[in-house]
Amino acid sequence: MAETRKLRMGMVGGGPGAFIGPVHRIAAELDGLIELTAGAFSQSPERSRASAAAYKIDPARAYGSYIEMIEAESKRPDAIDFVAIVTPNHLHLPVTKAAFAAGFPVMSDKPATATYAEALELETLVASSNLPYGLTHTYAGYALVREARAICASGKLGTIRKFAVEYLQGWLSKPIENTGQKQAAWRSDPAQNGPGGCTGDIGVHALHLLEYVTGLRTTSMNAILRSVVPGRALDDDCNAVLNMNNGASGTLMASQVAAGEGNGLRLRVYGENGSLDWRQEDPNRLIVKWLDGPEEIHHAAAGYLGADARAVTRLPGGHPEGYLEAFAVLYREFAQALIAWKDGNQHPLPPTLPGIEAGVRGMRFIDRCIESNRTRTWVDF
Amino acid sequence: MAETRKLRMGMVGGGPGAFIGPVHRIAAELDGLIELTAGAFSQSPERSRASAAAYKIDPARAYGSYIEMIEAESKRPDAIDFVAIVTPNHLHLPVTKAAFAAGFPVMSDKPATATYAEALELETLVASSNLPYGLTHTYAGYALVREARAICASGKLGTIRKFAVEYLQGWLSKPIENTGQKQAAWRSDPAQNGPGGCTGDIGVHALHLLEYVTGLRTTSMNAILRSVVPGRALDDDCNAVLNMNNGASGTLMASQVAAGEGNGLRLRVYGENGSLDWRQEDPNRLIVKWLDGPEEIHHAAAGYLGADARAVTRLPGGHPEGYLEAFAVLYREFAQALIAWKDGNQHPLPPTLPGIEAGVRGMRFIDRCIESNRTRTWVDF
Amino acid sequence: MAETRKLRMGMVGGGPGAFIGPVHRIAAELDGLIELTAGAFSQSPERSRASAAAYKIDPARAYGSYIEMIEAESKRPDAIDFVAIVTPNHLHLPVTKAAFAAGFPVMSDKPATATYAEALELETLVASSNLPYGLTHTYAGYALVREARAICASGKLGTIRKFAVEYLQGWLSKPIENTGQKQAAWRSDPAQNGPGGCTGDIGVHALHLLEYVTGLRTTSMNAILRSVVPGRALDDDCNAVLNMNNGASGTLMASQVAAGEGNGLRLRVYGENGSLDWRQEDPNRLIVKWLDGPEEIHHAAAGYLGADARAVTRLPGGHPEGYLEAFAVLYREFAQALIAWKDGNQHPLPPTLPGIEAGVRGMRFIDRCIESNRTRTWVDF
Amino acid sequence: MAETRKLRMGMVGGGPGAFIGPVHRIAAELDGLIELTAGAFSQSPERSRASAAAYKIDPARAYGSYIEMIEAESKRPDAIDFVAIVTPNHLHLPVTKAAFAAGFPVMSDKPATATYAEALELETLVASSNLPYGLTHTYAGYALVREARAICASGKLGTIRKFAVEYLQGWLSKPIENTGQKQAAWRSDPAQNGPGGCTGDIGVHALHLLEYVTGLRTTSMNAILRSVVPGRALDDDCNAVLNMNNGASGTLMASQVAAGEGNGLRLRVYGENGSLDWRQEDPNRLIVKWLDGPEEIHHAAAGYLGADARAVTRLPGGHPEGYLEAFAVLYREFAQALIAWKDGNQHPLPPTLPGIEAGVRGMRFIDRCIESNRTRTWVDF
Repeated sequence: MAETRKLRMGMVGGGPGAFIGPVHRIAAELDGLIELTAGAFSQSPERSRASAAAYKIDPARAYGSYIEMIEAESKRPDAIDFVAIVTPNHLHLPVTKAAFAAGFPVMSDKPATATYAEALELETLVASSNLPYGLTHTYAGYALVREARAICASGKLGTIRKFAVEYLQGWLSKPIENTGQKQAAWRSDPAQNGPGGCTGDIGVHALHLLEYVTGLRTTSMNAILRSVVPGRALDDDCNAVLNMNNGASGTLMASQVAAGEGNGLRLRVYGENGSLDWRQEDPNRLIVKWLDGPEEIHHAAAGYLGADARAVTRLPGGHPEGYLEAFAVLYREFAQALIAWKDGNQHPLPPTLPGIEAGVRGMRFIDRCIESNRTRTWVDF
Repeated sequence: MAETRKLRMGMVGGGPGAFIGPVHRIAAELDGLIELTAGAFSQSPERSRASAAAYKIDPARAYGSYIEMIEAESKRPDAIDFVAIVTPNHLHLPVTKAAFAAGFPVMSDKPATATYAEALELETLVASSNLPYGLTHTYAGYALVREARAICASGKLGTIRKFAVEYLQGWLSKPIENTGQKQAAWRSDPAQNGPGGCTGDIGVHALHLLEYVTGLRTTSMNAILRSVVPGRALDDDCNAVLNMNNGASGTLMASQVAAGEGNGLRLRVYGENGSLDWRQEDPNRLIVKWLDGPEEIHHAAAGYLGADARAVTRLPGGHPEGYLEAFAVLYREFAQALIAWKDGNQHPLPPTLPGIEAGVRGMRFIDRCIESNRTRTWVDF
Repeated sequence: MAETRKLRMGMVGGGPGAFIGPVHRIAAELDGLIELTAGAFSQSPERSRASAAAYKIDPARAYGSYIEMIEAESKRPDAIDFVAIVTPNHLHLPVTKAAFAAGFPVMSDKPATATYAEALELETLVASSNLPYGLTHTYAGYALVREARAICASGKLGTIRKFAVEYLQGWLSKPIENTGQKQAAWRSDPAQNGPGGCTGDIGVHALHLLEYVTGLRTTSMNAILRSVVPGRALDDDCNAVLNMNNGASGTLMASQVAAGEGNGLRLRVYGENGSLDWRQEDPNRLIVKWLDGPEEIHHAAAGYLGADARAVTRLPGGHPEGYLEAFAVLYREFAQALIAWKDGNQHPLPPTLPGIEAGVRGMRFIDRCIESNRTRTWVDF
Repeated sequence: MAETRKLRMGMVGGGPGAFIGPVHRIAAELDGLIELTAGAFSQSPERSRASAAAYKIDPARAYGSYIEMIEAESKRPDAIDFVAIVTPNHLHLPVTKAAFAAGFPVMSDKPATATYAEALELETLVASSNLPYGLTHTYAGYALVREARAICASGKLGTIRKFAVEYLQGWLSKPIENTGQKQAAWRSDPAQNGPGGCTGDIGVHALHLLEYVTGLRTTSMNAILRSVVPGRALDDDCNAVLNMNNGASGTLMASQVAAGEGNGLRLRVYGENGSLDWRQEDPNRLIVKWLDGPEEIHHAAAGYLGADARAVTRLPGGHPEGYLEAFAVLYREFAQALIAWKDGNQHPLPPTLPGIEAGVRGMRFIDRCIESNRTRTWVDF
């Protein structure tokens, strides 16, 4: 495919009241490589068409189900180029299956599936289909996360010994799932969400960020899950200690009852010679501390940053990029890989873009949290 | 015009190597109301077409001059809906004139014109044409700038007595305009830039932010301009004291030789009862201090923010929005006004969107800085 | 005793090269209630006299051993009023015993003893002697720690559900104990230090701060200890999960191999309605977050603080108080209690001043960390 | 004088209700070189004796006037070694005169005198008496101010081009001088305070910090003074632009009506290659920014700091030192100089300790502010 047109995206989910659907739309289109073209935005055809109007896309391409969308689009000469999945978790696997069956690549919201068993099934499917599959672990798209990753890989910190990753939110401090708040409702329902509560919603982001930046892999862990708010079916708080494949050890905290916190994802990594500290709520600064020498603040877009960070930077220093820009980085990398793939290259997705491996590890994490918590013991990862 | 399609934007400027062109493209398209459709991206037709390809727009709508674009588009049934101007300053007035002559509304990068005389001419033109004219004083698009403005208007701070606005950059600390850096080169050339150096490039933003947030107007000022870097034709540093129409007084600093600074726009406003503090490099937090009571940090997207801030918020708390999102707010407001106007409403631009008044005041500011500096005296504004 | 003179302090330890001896001297004297009068600063009489000269005290009151000091001072009409212990840990119990035997109250550096068994012995001794015994858990002396404690007690946060306490230092990232660094050397020697490495040196501070501020008590825990630096006999890194007597749960991290960290003690407490966040390296600010409402920064010395915080504040707002001032608060409380006690009142030490209960819990903490780590299981506290 | 005893300090002022008296006592005694021995704490002998009791000094050395104190102490074999002046400004000159007449060195609170004319008189007196005279510009005692000074002197920043110094307080936002607040009352009374309001109280600190750190001297200035609170006799707000003897230029803001501010002294210095940023309310961090390279935070007590900073550091990194410790640095330097002087050395005060030059410049600053404001013109310094 020449680069003469934008890639066409068909979205599943993201109808009225959704948070993440419009986010995916903005992120996908931000760098000018993709346009939202079709969608099964809702299970109600009428509401799907209303979404299409809001998105200003052709009403003929608003579908009442993902099955219908995939079928209809397959027949069009100007078919969509890929499917974006932004539904509750329990639909991630079935939609991916249907898309793959029709030959459509998939960009999926996280977590990959609702359960670990499903993730293993999906892993097989991705391998056998040989179709591009991306997973929007958004935080991997921040330039300074890329810089942190490059610093870890460079060995400047020496052997990594210790870390602390935390993802603290407060929005579920009260039982708002009982009051009709849509985001809270499906996340608190095991049938739609899967068995991991805050572990599945944000814990997987924390694990991914840790492994993405350090390049290490968790080998064993000890986790305590709680449902702090009475009556809640799923965990809303998780404290864990993790051991890594190089002997490093540290803590992972995830909570949605940390009253007063917004979206507090933070990673600290300690090596022999120095350490890194990055906070999602202040994403344009990366703190680097050394045993000997001043503390450093590495600013987004600075000339001293490495190639990976600069590759995903759009604005000059001091012009903040945020969550949508990070999200858009993942879509850009997906689009570039897709263009090459359509041109016949066996172009794998770049290592910077989270895919099925991250998806499986995230679901494994939820599974291991639950097991460790149940047995009150250390478990292998 | 029904809302069944996106508005079509024709851009002037923004060709290869430009910074602000792609920014306008992203910002315009971000909220799904506008699409870049045509452009006179460069004075070279070839380079203009190259830009069109990069933007993935119809190559037939890449023009070699704004005159050509306006002429050709005027004749199309699917003509552009408005012109976006992202050229060096000296072209702002001629392009606006040509657009208006053809009946196209204009969204212009700041400053409004190259000189104060031109701004007065433009003011007359806007009034007589009765066409929508918006000016991208980007920082007015941040949600917490809107919140700060609402707090000032609410009277909670009491009478505003004092302020300190500063816009500190360091990127012109060395004479990089002599090394071919494109951004530095035209800004350092009076013929393309007009007579205001850092005053025109960033000082006007500082003045605008001050007047936009407080609702006050400058009545007299005393400014010292310097060209700190030897051989530079225009000012690169400005220190001023300003008096306002309610008796308040304060300082305005603008500099592009503040070595080590990125894009340090900050406004502090002091009233009888408390104060505000907002920094562009940390835009999702607004600090509010009171005479009696804890210091407060108002976070973007929080439930306690006022209607104006919430109206321009896309993401939940803790998900940073940045410079592009602020920019996009202005385009969204412009688009919404344009839609109403096309529907026949004498819909004025909303007061939250900077327009010609801000444009004239900015150019007046440059003029007054130069006069005060020349005479070493206080001057009326 | 009338308040016509200062209390006389006899110090054990704190000779040449010591860090904490001069700190105790400054802290004890800062509020004008105590003067350093005598000392067994070193086991070498000569070095003890050199210290006396440096402290500008009577050389006749510089002793070569604590036994000598206690004996000689007991006979003087102008005897010391109490003994301050600033030695390595293994001497804490024997010196306290000797002081108590001679009827001298004791202000001891932490931890209370070298081992948990010793702490239980000391507990009995304090109870039977009925002599004042204070323990310098320094951080309990900060005004905003007092404020945090008062906020927890007030119930404003609702039930406390979650916490994260961490104490991160980097100074033992390399094996500096092998290079003659005095502070590192004795801390790395089990014979002088006891069995707890970073747990004993700083972990006990973290535990104390947690229990002091929240009023909760740990009931079970799971800890992993590591000796990250090869060849180190004692732990230099600790990750633990703690459960409290009200059902709250959280993490405790202590490390001396967190490269790049200085003295990073931080406590976060999450209740149903809001949360607290205090950092020792920024001690004059207490962050208070609410589910609904702006984040607050409570500043030291502000009028809105409670009585406990104001009682230990010396300077107006914006004039930073630091580590020495916090330390001095404990000495002041000890001195005031001592004056009342000498006047014949059965004046107990105030609840704000750490004493033997804190001492025993700290030693218990070390013991439980070692046991949990050894068995890789949860242990009762 | 051998170092076998502490220096004896006689204080003038500092009686009941005073803020700065106890601060001087703590600061003077903190490093163990000085002890408060005598005082004319109040003009009422009874209140002076009450202060003596509170300070736990010999009641026989509590005097009803500074004349009485100087006379009586002169005759004692154990006379005071120097006089500390902590009165309202109008007494600074007469007390210094009396002390010098009796041969006593003087450590004076700032500003040096009440008026510029008095300062010139004092300058002559200091020169002719040849007695040590120190001035407690407290902020010069912070370790990181010393580091900032050393960095400027090193030339690493290149030529200094620009600065911004500000000292913002909010405590006089309301007319509290009318409600009996002692600190506000005398400061608002020209007879006790002299003609400079916030300029004299805090503006002189800002000027001193600027000149102390940069080594530059102000050559011309343009200032606007205001009495923002109705009925206030003296200025409570000052905005000025200053030119320096090397061509640098910048702003000086001082205000006591900046509602919500505490004790906001901040200095930013911009050179050709980088910049410094120090804030008194966060005194243990010095921010250093470079044109090329990460922003740096230099922490107090770090090994990479220069000799001047390390010389005035008492605690290891991460243990905050504050206002009292900075104050004590000045007393320590004064004490060390005094010891040398008493030993017969013509030991001048060290250049790091503010003295009469700083005193005269401060009073000149007030004078020039008033003149520039009166004439609305630039004035020579």
